[in-house]
Amino acid sequence: MSSNDSIEALIELMARLPGLGPRSARRAVLHLIRKRGPLLSPLADAMRQVADSARECLNCGNIGTADICDICTSNKRATGQICVVEDVGDLWAMERAGVFKGRYHVLGGTLSALDSVGPEELRIPRLIDRIPAEEVTEVILALNATVDGVTTAHYIADRLQGQVRLTSLAQGVPIGGELDYLDDGTITAALNARKEIL
Amino acid sequence: MSSNDSIEALIELMARLPGLGPRSARRAVLHLIRKRGPLLSPLADAMRQVADSARECLNCGNIGTADICDICTSNKRATGQICVVEDVGDLWAMERAGVFKGRYHVLGGTLSALDSVGPEELRIPRLIDRIPAEEVTEVILALNATVDGVTTAHYIADRLQGQVRLTSLAQGVPIGGELDYLDDGTITAALNARKEIL
Ligand SMILES: [Zn+2]
Ligand SMILES: [Zn+2]
Repeated sequence: MSSNDSIEALIELMARLPGLGPRSARRAVLHLIRKRGPLLSPLADAMRQVADSARECLNCGNIGTADICDICTSNKRATGQICVVEDVGDLWAMERAGVFKGRYHVLGGTLSALDSVGPEELRIPRLIDRIPAEEVTEVILALNATVDGVTTAHYIADRLQGQVRLTSLAQGVPIGGELDYLDDGTITAALNARKEIL
Repeated sequence: MSSNDSIEALIELMARLPGLGPRSARRAVLHLIRKRGPLLSPLADAMRQVADSARECLNCGNIGTADICDICTSNKRATGQICVVEDVGDLWAMERAGVFKGRYHVLGGTLSALDSVGPEELRIPRLIDRIPAEEVTEVILALNATVDGVTTAHYIADRLQGQVRLTSLAQGVPIGGELDYLDDGTITAALNARKEIL
């Protein structure tokens, strides 16, 4: 590999990050090279560590570095409540709000006829198994207020009807809004005002 | 280090990149974890390689992976012409335009009374040494059209007056504009229409 090929390769990889194009990738790489001691080297190590250790929790789909995630193994989290979210970004948003003390279930998307995404692709069977296994009494459906999100919430509500209390985040979630873009206060209000679905 | 600490550490480092804040760093890290095979792992390797090998060319200040950079060692580049730029981002912009076939000298900034940046901080002595050593006949001052850029160009022109032909990028560089933001065609036009300074 010639002198600049490794730098070019780094720029091309960086340009594949969301929010970075070729220009901003170049600027980022230049910044990294200037700060290669305090920033580039630790960043390379952190990426290597996460690349080698990150995995999806076998129980809930959260991302961590063990087979079962911190939240699922914590004895400080209520076991009777599961908050169902679409992806890990939404789980992180809930955790930043700091108001929910139960556990999560990360679907990994929404049902979508268009994209042929069915319940099996979404970790829904695992959610159904968890209800008796963890003696769950309430499932909070914290899905985004999109067409597919609402469809998915209804599907899960149908499947779990009669087994648990089913609620959804109510107040404060704007129409078409996505959890990951909400501030902590809005998420807290929405959780506190959650309402029965069925 | 607990399960999520390594992911948190990665988010914090990513948030220190130019153009990324905490939110976009989280989104980038989530994207990287989802694509940890095809993207995160190669990126970690590329960063490690660049962190270990990137250095400034002892001759011109360009960034490469050897003591003397590709451009300084290439026998395809004209030796009699040196294009002086403020930083490596500007050199990259010139190279993308593809019109300049000589060599470069990267100052690493501009003279600045305010920030106590003098000629020694800017690799200017090395530039002066290169004139006889490389039998340079023309120095193209491709500095940004800022107050400090113009001051620096004048200082270098004064020092080299009578020894070489001194030119500057003329046509096409907008007032207050920075090289790194110009398209290739503008850079080509500016180089082709360069004019004598003194
Ligand atoms: Zn888990
Ligand atoms: Zn060089």
